[in-house]
Amino acid sequence: MSRKVLIDVDTGVDDALGILLAIHSDDVDVAAITTVNGNVSLETATLNTCKIVEMTGASHIPVVPGANQPLVRTSYFEHRIHGADGIGGALAEFTPTKKPENDYAADYMIELAKKSTQPLTFIMTGPLTNLAEALQKCPELPTYLDEVIFMGGVVDDIGNVTPVAEYNMYVDPEAARIVLEAGFKKLTQVGLDVTRKALLTEAHLQQLDNTKYGEYIRQSTSDYMARYIERNGVKACAMHDPLAVAVAIQPALVTTQQLFVDIETSSRLCDGQTVCDFQGRLDQQPNVHVSLKVDADAFLNLFVHTISVPQEGSL
Amino acid sequence: MSRKVLIDVDTGVDDALGILLAIHSDDVDVAAITTVNGNVSLETATLNTCKIVEMTGASHIPVVPGANQPLVRTSYFEHRIHGADGIGGALAEFTPTKKPENDYAADYMIELAKKSTQPLTFIMTGPLTNLAEALQKCPELPTYLDEVIFMGGVVDDIGNVTPVAEYNMYVDPEAARIVLEAGFKKLTQVGLDVTRKALLTEAHLQQLDNTKYGEYIRQSTSDYMARYIERNGVKACAMHDPLAVAVAIQPALVTTQQLFVDIETSSRLCDGQTVCDFQGRLDQQPNVHVSLKVDADAFLNLFVHTISVPQEGSL
Amino acid sequence: MSRKVLIDVDTGVDDALGILLAIHSDDVDVAAITTVNGNVSLETATLNTCKIVEMTGASHIPVVPGANQPLVRTSYFEHRIHGADGIGGALAEFTPTKKPENDYAADYMIELAKKSTQPLTFIMTGPLTNLAEALQKCPELPTYLDEVIFMGGVVDDIGNVTPVAEYNMYVDPEAARIVLEAGFKKLTQVGLDVTRKALLTEAHLQQLDNTKYGEYIRQSTSDYMARYIERNGVKACAMHDPLAVAVAIQPALVTTQQLFVDIETSSRLCDGQTVCDFQGRLDQQPNVHVSLKVDADAFLNLFVHTISVPQEGSL
Amino acid sequence: MSRKVLIDVDTGVDDALGILLAIHSDDVDVAAITTVNGNVSLETATLNTCKIVEMTGASHIPVVPGANQPLVRTSYFEHRIHGADGIGGALAEFTPTKKPENDYAADYMIELAKKSTQPLTFIMTGPLTNLAEALQKCPELPTYLDEVIFMGGVVDDIGNVTPVAEYNMYVDPEAARIVLEAGFKKLTQVGLDVTRKALLTEAHLQQLDNTKYGEYIRQSTSDYMARYIERNGVKACAMHDPLAVAVAIQPALVTTQQLFVDIETSSRLCDGQTVCDFQGRLDQQPNVHVSLKVDADAFLNLFVHTISVPQEGSL
Ligand SMILES: [Ca+2]
Ligand SMILES: [Ca+2]
Ligand SMILES: [Ca+2]
Ligand SMILES: [Ca+2]
Repeated sequence: MSRKVLIDVDTGVDDALGILLAIHSDDVDVAAITTVNGNVSLETATLNTCKIVEMTGASHIPVVPGANQPLVRTSYFEHRIHGADGIGGALAEFTPTKKPENDYAADYMIELAKKSTQPLTFIMTGPLTNLAEALQKCPELPTYLDEVIFMGGVVDDIGNVTPVAEYNMYVDPEAARIVLEAGFKKLTQVGLDVTRKALLTEAHLQQLDNTKYGEYIRQSTSDYMARYIERNGVKACAMHDPLAVAVAIQPALVTTQQLFVDIETSSRLCDGQTVCDFQGRLDQQPNVHVSLKVDADAFLNLFVHTISVPQEGSL
Repeated sequence: MSRKVLIDVDTGVDDALGILLAIHSDDVDVAAITTVNGNVSLETATLNTCKIVEMTGASHIPVVPGANQPLVRTSYFEHRIHGADGIGGALAEFTPTKKPENDYAADYMIELAKKSTQPLTFIMTGPLTNLAEALQKCPELPTYLDEVIFMGGVVDDIGNVTPVAEYNMYVDPEAARIVLEAGFKKLTQVGLDVTRKALLTEAHLQQLDNTKYGEYIRQSTSDYMARYIERNGVKACAMHDPLAVAVAIQPALVTTQQLFVDIETSSRLCDGQTVCDFQGRLDQQPNVHVSLKVDADAFLNLFVHTISVPQEGSL
Repeated sequence: MSRKVLIDVDTGVDDALGILLAIHSDDVDVAAITTVNGNVSLETATLNTCKIVEMTGASHIPVVPGANQPLVRTSYFEHRIHGADGIGGALAEFTPTKKPENDYAADYMIELAKKSTQPLTFIMTGPLTNLAEALQKCPELPTYLDEVIFMGGVVDDIGNVTPVAEYNMYVDPEAARIVLEAGFKKLTQVGLDVTRKALLTEAHLQQLDNTKYGEYIRQSTSDYMARYIERNGVKACAMHDPLAVAVAIQPALVTTQQLFVDIETSSRLCDGQTVCDFQGRLDQQPNVHVSLKVDADAFLNLFVHTISVPQEGSL
Repeated sequence: MSRKVLIDVDTGVDDALGILLAIHSDDVDVAAITTVNGNVSLETATLNTCKIVEMTGASHIPVVPGANQPLVRTSYFEHRIHGADGIGGALAEFTPTKKPENDYAADYMIELAKKSTQPLTFIMTGPLTNLAEALQKCPELPTYLDEVIFMGGVVDDIGNVTPVAEYNMYVDPEAARIVLEAGFKKLTQVGLDVTRKALLTEAHLQQLDNTKYGEYIRQSTSDYMARYIERNGVKACAMHDPLAVAVAIQPALVTTQQLFVDIETSSRLCDGQTVCDFQGRLDQQPNVHVSLKVDADAFLNLFVHTISVPQEGSL
């Protein structure tokens, strides 16, 4: 039986790839996609998501817009990485007929969770604002969810916005703190510790050439890969968000440890840092399944294989 | 024409008196009452509000529960001041038939504001969580509102929770910051600077004896007055919340000045302090009409006169 | 018997007036003057102090330079108020023969305190860096001192640098915190609450005309008074530092209350704020004699009378 | 020619071993040892240092006490790790005739630096309070020093007090910040990243058996090793401080990179964390030579070889 999931995105080059993976996987059933302010504005993230969903032909999946700003901070876009449009200029000419729902992500999350008869998992690949708002409105939300998997943070490596903070955590650390403290049955972190090792390379792009999404992915990741070379010296695309989706599909892709994780929200240097207590110094109960290792090859095989859909003509 | 208002309360001894004032005033029309975690839990605040509303006979007014905790902090009740039940033990035996709506305060605020054909004013007499959530979900909310009047903060006097912070601000300073920065057309602060001067005394209680609410008010304020004597040496009840309501009824009761007000949210000593820039040192545009003086006699006359409803027999 | 004092200054228009008062008072005996970075640089403060001391003819008083920066912050000069030279351009042409000691203020303070056979009082009229350093080096310093009187902070009024912070506290709040927590036998605060009421006006200047310092004071305070008019609308010179000296001479000039005072050192809005716990909410022992009222007329009479030295020809 | 060094210590099991290494190395000439509050009180650290120095027979080396508390924080001892006496109960019965100088570390540092005709290096193996105080008093101190090597911090691993902070940095982060920002010609960090890899094991203890210090080291490190097993599962003694000394003797033992390092001083979770900007995100000039790799074998050979002094009879 496939696993029922809601995906929360700030689409985003890699969010888009995560959506493709989820929609084409037989192992998850995407009940809805909610959108959030993050890499790009809420409006752009929502538009991109509608484009991606329509491109896959799965327009029945509801796209629900959410928060258009962090809980208590101002927006912090990453246009230099994701392009002004968020998906690297791909699909620029495409006007989707798919429209977002006239609903609100936090409300939709609560309603979906309450009415769901199957176990439900949330996969979060943007700042955690929507989920924090849902928790604020419905503190008992954790009882309705099987698992929350979030892409975000880093526990044993450097950050990607500041020296110590990962983007999704940095943008809305207060929201992340609410999520970390909410008491979910299973809260799984897929952070930079593992996503940095999950690299889409030219070889993968070649495998995807002449498949339905080959051209889109080349175009969408082109500038993103250029940024990556600048900073890291290799041509590759870190598959942050698709890995979070893949963990829902095949949990064994990552090795996790149950640890206590807290987040700094009020610091000159360390805002958004996920502090992981590996040695039990803070005397707190573990609250997160922290991903520490990843089988990167298995993940990329899964990704490439799953989205290798035959070409059917252009959009 | 009477002024259409929504009142947001954490009922609370003085919130209850504010509700009585609003319902019996011909100058305001109470469209709804929303409730929030604050002096007491959301559940208790909601129950108390239903009791008060039913006691007045205005059970058509919807009571809508909202946030049951501050945005990013834990609750901080004041049972010592308001009693375990929030209204000093009054109406303890009374089980209201009036029930709260099956809705959520932030949502209700947005909907009411959007559909209202008349100018609408929000009167906030608890922590500002509900309004902050509404702003998060609907950043354009300020365009739909005529005015927001909030009881909270202090700009030229000491606090009532810490040496520098007033209760409503202290409990949810992040919410207050969102409200202060939201860009309301008119945001009026009724803080301790003026509410401390608005004292209900034994003389007023005597005026209210043998009116409909005389006994309730004596009972409800009894312990509250005892606490007040301990700290301030006089027997009186500071009418924080009723003054905010009265300012909606008769704005000239207070003298205001347009000033820039910010709130501290991350400090060892000063969390929740409303910092008012009287001398323009921070180089910011005024965002608040700050109440600096009050005609306390006129206010108390208004209050006593308005709620001096003839007795009709017991509940 | 006159009271033995050390004065610590960041001279400064008003520090200079404090020095004049101390030197000409029969009730205090100035054992030394130490200098500190503050209104102006350490170098300028030291030069100004030498000028003032030489002008009085008391060149036997040692002038000892101290810290040339706050403990853990960068300098914050106030040239707009005190002039580029710190004393409003007065004595600009005067090169004193008086030279500072080849010693260091914190060391000198400790040595003087330890060797003093009489009760010793420190009068601090700049940021508290020197005293904090002395305490760091000699934590038992408080046992050697009779009293410390400091000009700084404000407990029931607005600040003069930020909306909540007074200059001396704002510049080195960490130093102030060390002083507040040091356990002095008697620590007396002379803050803006009282110094703002101690105004030198044109009438006082006229009384001083044709005395030794009349011209110096007119010249030195001219721009300072201009700044004061801009902000406060009256022509006057707030006698912050001279009042601290006067409190050493005649303690009854101010009415004090023993209270707990703490200082904020890590805040977006409130750094340097002296938080005074008037209602015992923080459950701490009083550590400061806080000046709450001042007999301004008596103070100004004392000041004018004390420094009305006959003119003897120009410098 | 041997290198002239001052060592600043909070002796401490490993400080003691660093002192032994320095005194017996032909490549460094120990001009003085200053002591500081840290692992143990100033008094204990000073006594221990005198014992160690006398044990080596180098009683001509001055031992100068310094700060007995952090700059703006309270003390934080580590008796559980270093024993109540700081050196694991060794030399408990020994009353040294060697006495500390009647001077103060910060003053001594300045004086030594100013008068030194040879290049001078400071090796810091405790909290950086003394050096911060010296910089406060003499901001031009960096011009007099060849290099400062400090044991402290961690840039790519977990902390040893909190999840993110190393002990020496945690105890006095404000002092560390002053040192980091002082502009030293060469400031070399020897942090946990390398010291954790420099482990003294049973094999090394056996090599030292029947040498002058064999018994002392076994005794002194016994409990320390027991603590290490508890947390890390191996019997070993991390040679934090001796490695800093060794880096002065043989710089090539560590591989360093010039990077910008800052320290958090005001955070709920991250106080004392040394934040290293590996990717230039903070746009600051490098200020530290950060040790990233160590040749542990070469270091331990150096250590064991250097202190393998023949036994001459008991103390
Ligand atoms: Ca994303
Ligand atoms: Ca209330
Ligand atoms: Ca001054
Ligand atoms: Ca040490």
